[in-house]
Amino acid sequence: MSRSSSPVQTTSYAYRFGDGDADGNKDMKALLGGKGASLNEMSAIGLPVPPGFTLTTEACEYFVEHDRSWPPGMAEEIEDGMAHIESLAGKTFGDPDDPLLVSVRSGAAQSMPGMMDTVLNLGLNDEVVEGLAAKTGNPRFAYDAYRRFIDMFGDVVVGMDRRAFEDAMQRLKDERGAENDVDLDADDMHELVDRYKAVYRKETGRMFPEDPQRQLELAINAVFGSWMNERAVRYRQINEITGLRGTAVNVQAMVYGNMGEDSGTGVCFTRDPSTGERKLYGEFLLNAQGEDVVAGIRTPHDIQEMERIMPSIYDELRAATQRLEDHYGDMQDIEFTVQEGTLYILQTRDGKRTGPAALRIAVDMVEEGLVTKEDAVRDLVEPRHLEQILHKRFENPDAYRDDVIGEGLAASPGAAVGRVVFTAEDAEAWNEAGEDVVLVRIETSPEDVGGMDAAEGILTSRGGMTSHAAVVARGWGKPCVAGCDDIVVNYSRKSFTNGEVTVEEGDWISINGTTGEVVQGQQPLVDPELTDDFRRFMSWVDAFRELGVRTNADTPEDAAKAIDFGAEGIGLARTEHMFFGTERITKMRRMILAESESERRDALADLLPYQREDFAGLFRAMDGKKVTIRLLDPPLHEFLPSDDEAELESVAERLGTTPETIRQKLESLHQFNPMLGHRGCRLGVTHPEITEMQARALFEAALDVQEDGGSVHPEIMVPLISTEAELSNQRAVIERVADEVFAERDATVAYEVGTMIEVPRAALQAGDVARSADFFSFGTNDLTQMTFGFSRDDTAMFLPYYVEKEILEEDPFRVLDRSGVGELVEMATRRGRETKPELSVGICGEHGGEPASVAFCARIGLDYVSCSPFRVPIARLAAAQAALAASDGDVPVGEIAGNGST
Amino acid sequence: MSRSSSPVQTTSYAYRFGDGDADGNKDMKALLGGKGASLNEMSAIGLPVPPGFTLTTEACEYFVEHDRSWPPGMAEEIEDGMAHIESLAGKTFGDPDDPLLVSVRSGAAQSMPGMMDTVLNLGLNDEVVEGLAAKTGNPRFAYDAYRRFIDMFGDVVVGMDRRAFEDAMQRLKDERGAENDVDLDADDMHELVDRYKAVYRKETGRMFPEDPQRQLELAINAVFGSWMNERAVRYRQINEITGLRGTAVNVQAMVYGNMGEDSGTGVCFTRDPSTGERKLYGEFLLNAQGEDVVAGIRTPHDIQEMERIMPSIYDELRAATQRLEDHYGDMQDIEFTVQEGTLYILQTRDGKRTGPAALRIAVDMVEEGLVTKEDAVRDLVEPRHLEQILHKRFENPDAYRDDVIGEGLAASPGAAVGRVVFTAEDAEAWNEAGEDVVLVRIETSPEDVGGMDAAEGILTSRGGMTSHAAVVARGWGKPCVAGCDDIVVNYSRKSFTNGEVTVEEGDWISINGTTGEVVQGQQPLVDPELTDDFRRFMSWVDAFRELGVRTNADTPEDAAKAIDFGAEGIGLARTEHMFFGTERITKMRRMILAESESERRDALADLLPYQREDFAGLFRAMDGKKVTIRLLDPPLHEFLPSDDEAELESVAERLGTTPETIRQKLESLHQFNPMLGHRGCRLGVTHPEITEMQARALFEAALDVQEDGGSVHPEIMVPLISTEAELSNQRAVIERVADEVFAERDATVAYEVGTMIEVPRAALQAGDVARSADFFSFGTNDLTQMTFGFSRDDTAMFLPYYVEKEILEEDPFRVLDRSGVGELVEMATRRGRETKPELSVGICGEHGGEPASVAFCARIGLDYVSCSPFRVPIARLAAAQAALAASDGDVPVGEIAGNGST
Repeated sequence: MSRSSSPVQTTSYAYRFGDGDADGNKDMKALLGGKGASLNEMSAIGLPVPPGFTLTTEACEYFVEHDRSWPPGMAEEIEDGMAHIESLAGKTFGDPDDPLLVSVRSGAAQSMPGMMDTVLNLGLNDEVVEGLAAKTGNPRFAYDAYRRFIDMFGDVVVGMDRRAFEDAMQRLKDERGAENDVDLDADDMHELVDRYKAVYRKETGRMFPEDPQRQLELAINAVFGSWMNERAVRYRQINEITGLRGTAVNVQAMVYGNMGEDSGTGVCFTRDPSTGERKLYGEFLLNAQGEDVVAGIRTPHDIQEMERIMPSIYDELRAATQRLEDHYGDMQDIEFTVQEGTLYILQTRDGKRTGPAALRIAVDMVEEGLVTKEDAVRDLVEPRHLEQILHKRFENPDAYRDDVIGEGLAASPGAAVGRVVFTAEDAEAWNEAGEDVVLVRIETSPEDVGGMDAAEGILTSRGGMTSHAAVVARGWGKPCVAGCDDIVVNYSRKSFTNGEVTVEEGDWISINGTTGEVVQGQQPLVDPELTDDFRRFMSWVDAFRELGVRTNADTPEDAAKAIDFGAEGIGLARTEHMFFGTERITKMRRMILAESESERRDALADLLPYQREDFAGLFRAMDGKKVTIRLLDPPLHEFLPSDDEAELESVAERLGTTPETIRQKLESLHQFNPMLGHRGCRLGVTHPEITEMQARALFEAALDVQEDGGSVHPEIMVPLISTEAELSNQRAVIERVADEVFAERDATVAYEVGTMIEVPRAALQAGDVARSADFFSFGTNDLTQMTFGFSRDDTAMFLPYYVEKEILEEDPFRVLDRSGVGELVEMATRRGRETKPELSVGICGEHGGEPASVAFCARIGLDYVSCSPFRVPIARLAAAQAALAASDGDVPVGEIAGNGST
Repeated sequence: MSRSSSPVQTTSYAYRFGDGDADGNKDMKALLGGKGASLNEMSAIGLPVPPGFTLTTEACEYFVEHDRSWPPGMAEEIEDGMAHIESLAGKTFGDPDDPLLVSVRSGAAQSMPGMMDTVLNLGLNDEVVEGLAAKTGNPRFAYDAYRRFIDMFGDVVVGMDRRAFEDAMQRLKDERGAENDVDLDADDMHELVDRYKAVYRKETGRMFPEDPQRQLELAINAVFGSWMNERAVRYRQINEITGLRGTAVNVQAMVYGNMGEDSGTGVCFTRDPSTGERKLYGEFLLNAQGEDVVAGIRTPHDIQEMERIMPSIYDELRAATQRLEDHYGDMQDIEFTVQEGTLYILQTRDGKRTGPAALRIAVDMVEEGLVTKEDAVRDLVEPRHLEQILHKRFENPDAYRDDVIGEGLAASPGAAVGRVVFTAEDAEAWNEAGEDVVLVRIETSPEDVGGMDAAEGILTSRGGMTSHAAVVARGWGKPCVAGCDDIVVNYSRKSFTNGEVTVEEGDWISINGTTGEVVQGQQPLVDPELTDDFRRFMSWVDAFRELGVRTNADTPEDAAKAIDFGAEGIGLARTEHMFFGTERITKMRRMILAESESERRDALADLLPYQREDFAGLFRAMDGKKVTIRLLDPPLHEFLPSDDEAELESVAERLGTTPETIRQKLESLHQFNPMLGHRGCRLGVTHPEITEMQARALFEAALDVQEDGGSVHPEIMVPLISTEAELSNQRAVIERVADEVFAERDATVAYEVGTMIEVPRAALQAGDVARSADFFSFGTNDLTQMTFGFSRDDTAMFLPYYVEKEILEEDPFRVLDRSGVGELVEMATRRGRETKPELSVGICGEHGGEPASVAFCARIGLDYVSCSPFRVPIARLAAAQAALAASDGDVPVGEIAGNGST
């Protein structure tokens, strides 16, 4: 059948397959589409695929460009193709005595929602259906196939509203008092065919086409035409899919598993998708079609039972599936049908699997010699698989659907179960009393940190992916569902409600921070375990990546955890988190309430020893790895108590001042838009004594550790600059303090000074900023806020709607917006390095642990990403996969597209 | 003396001038600096300039690049130059019998703070001073000159701290019981010389150099060296001054006006700088030096009296000054000295003048044939001159300095006087009672609009250049001082204080919105008048500009005013201001409190007639000119009352609901960073019914006006987009409503749909956004906020400090940041036009009326700027000047520099 036999062959539009041979193969995705290439490939390697042919994407392109006409010669090739099918199937298209029926399916090089999909049983008409009934001896089967065909043809080819058919079906069922479709007999099906044809006529104004050739022609044209329909065009636009010529069309002989007890249909995996164990896994139904499996009316057999029921077919299936796994180098998810004792493989694809299964399969397949380590890292484990295994999860991910009482943002992965409390104090108290609690708040603030720590998980009704609750929870690897606006929290009643269900303090809930679901009651949990599979796999990953992976950690404990997960340094230590202990916050508040610089200096001097000890702890934990410490960033009012009478009084007493004084300070520090206010380096510039204290603490700590024989590598990061002058101002303060400390101690330590690039202007001005910076670290949270003009705490009012309506493809706080924010990141990196080629450039926003964002960082040549400890393995894998994709010359679509609509 | 006589002359470093001749001329600023070129020019056209020579900037460049050594041959040229001066002055440098003394001054091509300035009386030493005393018969004069020389030499050449000399002087005065310098006699001066020399020795560790040649050499080197001193380098960096080679040095014979009754010194203007009247204006002192005029101890004569006192010198002066004015084509500010009956012109420069004077001089000079209209528009009137004449001002701008009790932002120009009130209600009540009031608030909100309207001026202690008070006041042309944090307002006591002075309700204050000053008491005011000079001058202006000028106006009254000022359309009509009438705000609140879409639609239907009438009014006022109407922009909570019990109750009653309901709504609408929250097109996207109502009102209004025979040209502007999908979403709503209204009315009107570019991402994505936009209008207020990450309402905490410390050169909310925000504006314009060449692009932020920003907009090729009505003439002039500068090939430094430090 090879085309090479015909030396004058120029362009061919129909690639035939079947009977252990094929014109095409799996490498011809661009021409044959994914499905066509797979069918050709399976046939070529000798698997029993129903015969057929694939019309090429080139033909589609011609069709679109030539006003819906076919390229010259294609009609003849289709004729050839149908003859090819007829000859292999031993049936004739349109022959009432032994009719060939075919399926017609679209299939582009990339899967693409919105295009026409599938028409089955094509070739039936009033005459042929009689023949089919006679030939199969099963009139119900024949008329059922016919009415299904009319339904699909009307829907897919003509674009009718399918509900018209559903209504007709329901009416007939009502008339017959039938509960299910299966309760309808052959006559009913015949009746339904008549009614469907009437519906078709009424809705389209035309007769249903009886001529099989005409049916085929219309179906092919509909699939080709669907390439340009609105949804498909928009999908390609959004995902920046360009360079494709069109969709292919697959025309294939129908086979039926409902032809008797020697027929059947089933699906199977080559390995267990839950555990990864190497064994055939799946189910099948005797004398049934694919739809019957889905309909769930009959209970299917375990695939293993097939060995008993039809042993020779089972052996054939095992051989075929093994062949497919070997061939594709991955666990396969296979659909098959047995028609009258003959096995047909209908489809194969890489099988979906759980995290533990993915790791086991990857490790096993490398050991079995089926794939290389490179293949395993590139293809067999996805970042989300690692996410599953690093956190607790619900034992049965399907069991709780009915108990979901709300859905929020999947703010920090993992599942948690506990009794509901509404205040941080209660969380701590209940926890001490031995209770597992879930802390439910409208939103959290730094004051809640103790209670958050005591809780199993955190649920908030407000705030985005980078709200306080979300950031803190991710840092700790603690499950969190944030911004769940399905629920309304009532603090005074100590309850929350979704309008139907009200949950009181002490009630049990379960939250799934991986999906955002809030579930009533206690769901059983499964603990995570860092298996040997995990460790072996991760040891391979690092060999393939170029991008460094650091962690965001504020405590020695977090730092240690991150090192265990493979972090190569700290990319962001937030110093403000260090001021929230009871003793420290009081001193911090004294500093803020100071009425003069000298009073403030005194208060700062009190804070210095704490800060020095914190820094020393981090340096010791990181043992010579780079530690990037960011200067104080949040607006000062965040350290003051809220405007609550009782709290003000207790704080005032502790500070030896009056509530009125604190209230006045609160008022004077009030900001309309604190995100854009007096914070970041603006604090350090206007109050250099704060920077001085932090720098002194840092250098003293570094020297302390060094004197103890430790190795230290501090990097000092100035936040929120918008102009080079801010950085050089702060750099001068830091260098002066360094010189002072070095002189006092008669010792020095190497250090670097750099800046966060998180304000759009800093990105634009990066060429100048680099003059005063040893490194850049993109704070993509703030950069996203300012580039979009979205406050992360306020987006709940519109961002979910935007994502739902596809105004944005993704929440840009979760997945880096490559087209807008990404352009600034890329521009700043380029401009910075033009000024200073040796400039080190990383990213420390929350995106540093999100795979698509990590891939983007790798592609534009950043030096490292930094993320929460629990996301370090994910970032390592994403980085390795990005490097492998780059060395293959692939730029996966998902990695070049923006979140925007452009 | 012309250099052309020497054919082998290669480079010369000293350009000599004096005695009606000169080596250089006024076109050699790059080589001779501004001062040197002017001295050469004056001498060349025959004016009596003391002889001297100018060392070139090339020499300076050589000096800097060759480790402080002089270029070969310069020493000889200096020798020649000194000989030239000696021969013309008839005195010899260092000759005790009749010593030549010289001044040494720097002078680059652009004035540049931070460089060395002036050394006078150079050539004096212990021996020469005796000769000078003998020759002049005035030992006190001689020793006074000597001690001044030591002081200046120490300060300027050696970089000593000048206070050491001041201390020495003060000590001597104390010893002598002398009040003023003039109370010291010749012996005291001699004593002072000794003490100064001791100070010099002590501070520098060296003897004061006695050798005049050495003095000269050191002074020249000091001036050259100052080119590279830190402040000068930084100034050039900040202002992006590049391409200059260095500073020139001017060495010139000293002349003295204190040599007797036939000597004197003075300054004069060629026209009256207050009124512009053509007459010699100025003052002089007999037997005095320039410092004496400044010291203010003796009362100078009016320049006219000179005609009586020294008639021939007066005639000479009149001829010389007239010659200078003719020559420079502008009113001149001239310094002169008469030494023993001989007139010397020391300096001339374009004279500073008031707004009315500037206009009169420009118009007169064109009529006199002294300058062309083009010259007049380009050079003779500055935008700030127009600002003066468009607003009331204090009669005597110098009289009130002692009464200034605070200084805030010059938020809206003009002066106002009134009695202080602290609430909008009081402002209205007092105003009705016939009182002039100034409304003093911590900040204003939309609720205060009535009171703001009733007040003569507005003073706030918080908020920036684009705070509510500032924006509203500018729109009305009402004086406003905003963000005056020198004062603390106490509402409960109805007073404010600056810590020293407390101002109670009912006290009189005067505010100067042009300078930001707050003055205690009643300052006399002068009314503005649109003079014939103004109208004639502005009629010339428009001939030279290419940039269109529109106005920001929300009412027909503002629109009419703006047309009177020359506006060519409305660039921004803010629809939200239309909802603040009592009746309207109630309906607006009903809309916001609606619990369902249908309830909200009902409330919107109630608002529609108002909105339609507003739009019709604008269309009628603009009579076919383009009217850009922006869809609702602010977050909804701005329309709700504040959380005040009494107010909530009264509003709830009006709405027929409970205070609790409103409070809950307030809470649910609360945003942490409203600037970055649910506002702008985000409202229209999530609540399309709001956009529908506004679009319907607009189209119905347009058709109404058209049916009445009017002409309309509406442009609908979608605010705050960050991605193209938002715009296309809103565009689809608008187009659908247009089609509906057009069908209902069986009539159509042409309209355009465009967008504000005010979010950084929209600027980056402008290429895509342009696909759905007919026009762009840069909202540079918000764009500045987001590009800098500065909330305009919160910058008072650090921005003044930033400007003071030169971290930023300018408040970027006042002057467009050309380097950061400007790059986005330029990029978006380019990208937008690449997609759609016919795209109309303008700017409607507050910067649209600021001259440097307007010049930037002209330079990057925007189609128009839009500003408050009162700034329209300013924008017209700035646009004309920018066009003239561009056609001259000039890009003034101020127009290419950013506000940043880069």
